[in-house]
Amino acid sequence: MADDAVSAFAELDHERSVRRGYPEAVYCEGKTPEQVAGIAAAIGSRADPDGATLFTRAAPPHAKAVLGVLPDARYDADARLLAWPPRPPEPTGGLVAVVAAGTSDLAVAREAALTAAYLGRPYELVVDVGVAGLHRILGRLDLLRRARVVVVVAGMDGALPTVVAGLVPAPVVAVPTSVGYGAAFEGLAALLAMLNACAPGVAVVNIDNGYGAGHLAAQIAAPAAA
Amino acid sequence: MADDAVSAFAELDHERSVRRGYPEAVYCEGKTPEQVAGIAAAIGSRADPDGATLFTRAAPPHAKAVLGVLPDARYDADARLLAWPPRPPEPTGGLVAVVAAGTSDLAVAREAALTAAYLGRPYELVVDVGVAGLHRILGRLDLLRRARVVVVVAGMDGALPTVVAGLVPAPVVAVPTSVGYGAAFEGLAALLAMLNACAPGVAVVNIDNGYGAGHLAAQIAAPAAA
Amino acid sequence: MADDAVSAFAELDHERSVRRGYPEAVYCEGKTPEQVAGIAAAIGSRADPDGATLFTRAAPPHAKAVLGVLPDARYDADARLLAWPPRPPEPTGGLVAVVAAGTSDLAVAREAALTAAYLGRPYELVVDVGVAGLHRILGRLDLLRRARVVVVVAGMDGALPTVVAGLVPAPVVAVPTSVGYGAAFEGLAALLAMLNACAPGVAVVNIDNGYGAGHLAAQIAAPAAA
Amino acid sequence: MADDAVSAFAELDHERSVRRGYPEAVYCEGKTPEQVAGIAAAIGSRADPDGATLFTRAAPPHAKAVLGVLPDARYDADARLLAWPPRPPEPTGGLVAVVAAGTSDLAVAREAALTAAYLGRPYELVVDVGVAGLHRILGRLDLLRRARVVVVVAGMDGALPTVVAGLVPAPVVAVPTSVGYGAAFEGLAALLAMLNACAPGVAVVNIDNGYGAGHLAAQIAAPAAA
Amino acid sequence: MADDAVSAFAELDHERSVRRGYPEAVYCEGKTPEQVAGIAAAIGSRADPDGATLFTRAAPPHAKAVLGVLPDARYDADARLLAWPPRPPEPTGGLVAVVAAGTSDLAVAREAALTAAYLGRPYELVVDVGVAGLHRILGRLDLLRRARVVVVVAGMDGALPTVVAGLVPAPVVAVPTSVGYGAAFEGLAALLAMLNACAPGVAVVNIDNGYGAGHLAAQIAAPAAA
Amino acid sequence: MADDAVSAFAELDHERSVRRGYPEAVYCEGKTPEQVAGIAAAIGSRADPDGATLFTRAAPPHAKAVLGVLPDARYDADARLLAWPPRPPEPTGGLVAVVAAGTSDLAVAREAALTAAYLGRPYELVVDVGVAGLHRILGRLDLLRRARVVVVVAGMDGALPTVVAGLVPAPVVAVPTSVGYGAAFEGLAALLAMLNACAPGVAVVNIDNGYGAGHLAAQIAAPAAA
Amino acid sequence: MADDAVSAFAELDHERSVRRGYPEAVYCEGKTPEQVAGIAAAIGSRADPDGATLFTRAAPPHAKAVLGVLPDARYDADARLLAWPPRPPEPTGGLVAVVAAGTSDLAVAREAALTAAYLGRPYELVVDVGVAGLHRILGRLDLLRRARVVVVVAGMDGALPTVVAGLVPAPVVAVPTSVGYGAAFEGLAALLAMLNACAPGVAVVNIDNGYGAGHLAAQIAAPAAA
Amino acid sequence: MADDAVSAFAELDHERSVRRGYPEAVYCEGKTPEQVAGIAAAIGSRADPDGATLFTRAAPPHAKAVLGVLPDARYDADARLLAWPPRPPEPTGGLVAVVAAGTSDLAVAREAALTAAYLGRPYELVVDVGVAGLHRILGRLDLLRRARVVVVVAGMDGALPTVVAGLVPAPVVAVPTSVGYGAAFEGLAALLAMLNACAPGVAVVNIDNGYGAGHLAAQIAAPAAA
Repeated sequence: MADDAVSAFAELDHERSVRRGYPEAVYCEGKTPEQVAGIAAAIGSRADPDGATLFTRAAPPHAKAVLGVLPDARYDADARLLAWPPRPPEPTGGLVAVVAAGTSDLAVAREAALTAAYLGRPYELVVDVGVAGLHRILGRLDLLRRARVVVVVAGMDGALPTVVAGLVPAPVVAVPTSVGYGAAFEGLAALLAMLNACAPGVAVVNIDNGYGAGHLAAQIAAPAAA
Repeated sequence: MADDAVSAFAELDHERSVRRGYPEAVYCEGKTPEQVAGIAAAIGSRADPDGATLFTRAAPPHAKAVLGVLPDARYDADARLLAWPPRPPEPTGGLVAVVAAGTSDLAVAREAALTAAYLGRPYELVVDVGVAGLHRILGRLDLLRRARVVVVVAGMDGALPTVVAGLVPAPVVAVPTSVGYGAAFEGLAALLAMLNACAPGVAVVNIDNGYGAGHLAAQIAAPAAA
Repeated sequence: MADDAVSAFAELDHERSVRRGYPEAVYCEGKTPEQVAGIAAAIGSRADPDGATLFTRAAPPHAKAVLGVLPDARYDADARLLAWPPRPPEPTGGLVAVVAAGTSDLAVAREAALTAAYLGRPYELVVDVGVAGLHRILGRLDLLRRARVVVVVAGMDGALPTVVAGLVPAPVVAVPTSVGYGAAFEGLAALLAMLNACAPGVAVVNIDNGYGAGHLAAQIAAPAAA
Repeated sequence: MADDAVSAFAELDHERSVRRGYPEAVYCEGKTPEQVAGIAAAIGSRADPDGATLFTRAAPPHAKAVLGVLPDARYDADARLLAWPPRPPEPTGGLVAVVAAGTSDLAVAREAALTAAYLGRPYELVVDVGVAGLHRILGRLDLLRRARVVVVVAGMDGALPTVVAGLVPAPVVAVPTSVGYGAAFEGLAALLAMLNACAPGVAVVNIDNGYGAGHLAAQIAAPAAA
Repeated sequence: MADDAVSAFAELDHERSVRRGYPEAVYCEGKTPEQVAGIAAAIGSRADPDGATLFTRAAPPHAKAVLGVLPDARYDADARLLAWPPRPPEPTGGLVAVVAAGTSDLAVAREAALTAAYLGRPYELVVDVGVAGLHRILGRLDLLRRARVVVVVAGMDGALPTVVAGLVPAPVVAVPTSVGYGAAFEGLAALLAMLNACAPGVAVVNIDNGYGAGHLAAQIAAPAAA
Repeated sequence: MADDAVSAFAELDHERSVRRGYPEAVYCEGKTPEQVAGIAAAIGSRADPDGATLFTRAAPPHAKAVLGVLPDARYDADARLLAWPPRPPEPTGGLVAVVAAGTSDLAVAREAALTAAYLGRPYELVVDVGVAGLHRILGRLDLLRRARVVVVVAGMDGALPTVVAGLVPAPVVAVPTSVGYGAAFEGLAALLAMLNACAPGVAVVNIDNGYGAGHLAAQIAAPAAA
Repeated sequence: MADDAVSAFAELDHERSVRRGYPEAVYCEGKTPEQVAGIAAAIGSRADPDGATLFTRAAPPHAKAVLGVLPDARYDADARLLAWPPRPPEPTGGLVAVVAAGTSDLAVAREAALTAAYLGRPYELVVDVGVAGLHRILGRLDLLRRARVVVVVAGMDGALPTVVAGLVPAPVVAVPTSVGYGAAFEGLAALLAMLNACAPGVAVVNIDNGYGAGHLAAQIAAPAAA
Repeated sequence: MADDAVSAFAELDHERSVRRGYPEAVYCEGKTPEQVAGIAAAIGSRADPDGATLFTRAAPPHAKAVLGVLPDARYDADARLLAWPPRPPEPTGGLVAVVAAGTSDLAVAREAALTAAYLGRPYELVVDVGVAGLHRILGRLDLLRRARVVVVVAGMDGALPTVVAGLVPAPVVAVPTSVGYGAAFEGLAALLAMLNACAPGVAVVNIDNGYGAGHLAAQIAAPAAA
């Protein structure tokens, strides 16, 4: 499908990579697989993209549609993330540490880590270090203190980012998740807790927004020339 | 003023102490000083109260009105608490540890501690041990582990109760406070965080409800015969 | 599956039983059956657990996955609770009374009662004693007054805990449920009512959090040595 | 001031009494004392009003302004209610019982009772019978069962109306009040509890709306010919 | 099934009809069909019920289960209401007018009307008279003014009850419905509008609570001896 | 089906077109396909409708039911809109520009555009011009400045209407959509942003209400004689 | 004060009148009187303004500060609006009808009417025609049907705009006000009702935003050449 | 006052500067001037602080109390910020651009800028460049593109951060403010808009939290060695 046809429902932003320094992402939720496939075809027809395009919040039907058009795209079903071309760039800049409070937060953490990787940063992923057992996060202080930025992913009470921010000099990008029930209100409790972190140095993104957190982390940890 | 006159606006509950095991409290907010004075007079005219009556959320005009009727009552302005008779009973039962995350949470913590004392429990008060500097709460573990119940008072992100509950075997009574601004929404953020504590063993009371927390703590730490 | 493999997505907390006095629980919601099975295998490979591990909010697929690994685990489908080893310890400590306002609240009440049992407490369960027919709860006063702690489970208007707290000397652990519709707002109405109980002595946990209530009750009713 | 001048800011509804069977009320909040005085003058200039006009939520400055124009008007400062002519009609119809959970709810209860009286009903007022001490409301069952309608005024947990509705055959008009703090959210907790009353027969009006409750009660208890 | 077995999950309230003057209702939502069938069997085994028992919010599986036990029960699928015995009593008392703003509100209106009928009142049902076309409601004024009580069922903006209340002397029972989308917030918009009706005489029940509205209407329109 | 039968659940408003100048619309959500088909039949039986009737929020089963009765009706599945007769009138009046921030907002934008067309206005549709790439909307300024009214459809942050309103003299009708996740709260974030637009000239309609926006736009852009 | 000094805290937008067709407005709330005076001075120093500048939500101290700089400015204290130069332009375009539901809504209605006047439109103001007495609004139909746009200002239940929109062909700009108490939630109830108006043709602006409504009305009623 | 006395209400965190790399801040709101003065005295008595201590949200009475103890402290009343020692360090690291959408947002922007300065960063402040006049922000692109991080402060619709993030490669720290009224809900509208920014690269902090934004910006723009 050519750009002409795509322009009926999408306005591609080819120069964004130039203007912003980071390639475009396609938000799949709320789009039909056909629409996403059309966008994928238009992207595939461009010569020399200067970085991978990411398709975020891609459900399996979206993935199938994109892989029909760009067969070598990489799909991470947990993170609901598609990338094309499939290989991330060589990592440059500072370390991005991604920390998930619980196993249930892993999918969002993975989305953040992969996004940072595709935007060119080295990363490490730490899982299941919630505040109910402090020794777990304290046991990873060495890693956390080496990071240029720490992404902390947590649901329920959202208490982990403030604890981490009190322990490291790097900025913390906090991602509330919809993990929990009842008065968790689909992530609202964690979101509010993070916005009110009593330690300074906590930046908050939308609930379950692993992509946004990874993007921010990549910008913060960008090499000096960026 | 006799009970007769008081009955126009208040129905005293003389037997509550017998029925419940704990004496009555008078909630002053929303009552006029005159109404509170009338209630105080009725209480003062009873013979042999088996415990102190507490007047909670008592503003200075309430205090003045009560002291006009019961001159030996004790008023703690920080805790907004009046007690009559002024001396708490001899402490029995387990230790009540009361922990305030920040200096701004002190008034509510004090209300909890005094309530527990007037209901007959020994208590200790620990202040300014918020999670932004973990070493502060970790430095008090000995005390916390000696307690039969820990009352934890915190505003903003409300993260301290879940951290404490992960460290001690005793139940934690969590009191969210209205300390904070913006997305703290007058204590809502802390309240939700506490209800979603990822460590079990956290019981929550209303925002700024130091009295309720102290009462619960006194019940939990009651001696075996209670 | 060995701990090594599990550590990719979960950080086991083997010493928690030592540190806290109560064994660990695994929150299943938001985890895949495979993840839960992996955790179960790791738990099964430990020698001499000093108490049953509970798997909470376990849907049938979680149960099936765990039973594949720990065939003698016990699954209570109503309470969505798995326990392994399957036998609760000999009960010690005070009586835990669990009260459900309506039949629809029974599943949550059962989760609370079983949790208390697996944490070592004797319990009794009372059902369908909502405030719309006061004689029902008044008819159980003898039982309620024998309890060291009363767990009260109620949806809709959430009025039962405050009524019970006014009748007994023991602390009340109130569990709002999502039973109701419209302005019940999935349990919010009951939650707010319980937080504003006009009788003191009411501790609130998250909506539908039977596990948390049972855990708190077990801590409150713990024998003196605990 | 003549109707002509008043018509610049108010459109009087002279026929309402004819059309609806009940006289008009003037909502004072948000109006200046001058505006209210102008309306009062217009009302005073009419011949033969077939019932008292009520001025609701009238602050002292409103009262002063009205009394300057209609010197024999009656002002009840607690209920924030002005009535002119000052004498209520002879009571007809069924009994309106007005019940206030606590002393702090008295002002709203009084507004309801006086409204019912000015609309022509006999009433009785019962105070401080909250559910924390059930014997208090149970002690008034005879009165409550004689009533054609019961108005129940309560803040905090708003539990009283559902308890009363479970005890009497008459419909209950429930008035949540803004009494309370924290998670009472200015009466929201009580409002939601009342809307979710587990006993049928509970009709809810706006928070602190004693006038509306009294009006409804007067309609419900109207004599057969109404 | 005998009462003995039922008592494991439900406490029947046989005397409620005597105490309250109206028979019991069984709320089916949140109960399993088996539980509901057990309750139905217990009800069927009683001699001489003095009125029909209603099963509210009964989904088809509930209906099937009850009809298996009480084959002559009547099920109205639109209103989700089961009644046994199937015939309503002879109507006595005043007329209950039930008004639905739109066709989408019909199911709730029908639940209200049938409830009033089973509690012994005559009723008339008026549909699709929303305020967007005022001539429709104005064309029914004769009927509305004959009613002892008017039940008004409306979603979206919830404007109809206040318009009706301004036109008739009878009290209005307003039922917000979850009809609408977006900022209707599942009936919240209509609920708030009704609570703030600028005409007095509007009593509000829970969103979609046709049963509650019909019950209230039956109480309000009860014959003098009730 | 004749009007007689329909009147059991719907009160047609035949004169609305005369009274208001615009034909009636039938809101399908919450109605059964059978009810909608009945209404369609009644509409089809009228002589000389002076404009197309629209069926809004029509799911495929509604469409099938209507097409069974009015086989030449036009169904736009994206916009969930049915129209009969199928041809819009000749366009008159000013240009309606409809702008969708993202591809995911297209369905709502299309509903707005088609509604304006069926109410007689010329329109142009512009897609995927969100504020994250300002050059896209700036590239369409010529079109936007020719419009008599601009409908702007946006989800997530809802920032586009305020940007457009700052660039054109025409009024902007802003339609928040439920596109987004987490703290988008089903369109609430966009709705609030639009209500607080810092540029004047922004009129807001309900979330996802393309029909309402198209109707308003048609009224605003009506020819002078309207 | 020269533009130079002002640029420390405000960036004037001199060309807005050219770009948008309407002059600039200065939002005073949240600015100090000194800041507003500085802006006023900068505006006064421009030659040939092509229309009046409005200062909105101007409290008396703001007014005093502006009048110190621009002594011939006009201040309307009710509407909290300052205008300079003080005379509105000759009215052109269609009639703007401004309708206030109650006397308490008058200040916001006045702000809307004056804004429309200063932007060049003829207007008429109608007061106290709320839906509780329908004859009042029905008595003004002639005027309403002559208008090119109707601004409807209402608090509490916000029911008036939907009623008006059902009666006239012109678009309705609905302004919710913060008039009311309790569950009015500072205008939220009226706002939601208006967003869910069951009649099409209702455009909503922010709570109490008379300026925005007047501006929109002026744009909608602009003469053909605008 | 010595540390001994202070320890009654505050636990100083002397090593925080070492541990985190940034000096401590004292949150004044909710503390009495006496408490703040006590903390100031303790800070002043330490030897060799390695950076300025900030006192945030300091009202004039707090400032007076601190200046009584540390007379050379610097108080910025607009930013409600006290600093001691009064001179910020020599700036190192990348440029922090602070952008305020409107004049009313200036105080919060100033708090952010000063915080960044005291934490050692160079900054530039840009004011009144809201999206209603896009040319204003577009005119500052050169500056914005030179920044290592951009802090964007905006109230009302909160649209500016997403626009800026779409134009620059640096991360954006978005600060919603409580500027606005009605449906701005004290900054909630802006907060939600920022959390849902359709451009990636937006990190959000609490409403009005200029201190937090400045701290984050200082961390992000820290020199490589940090």
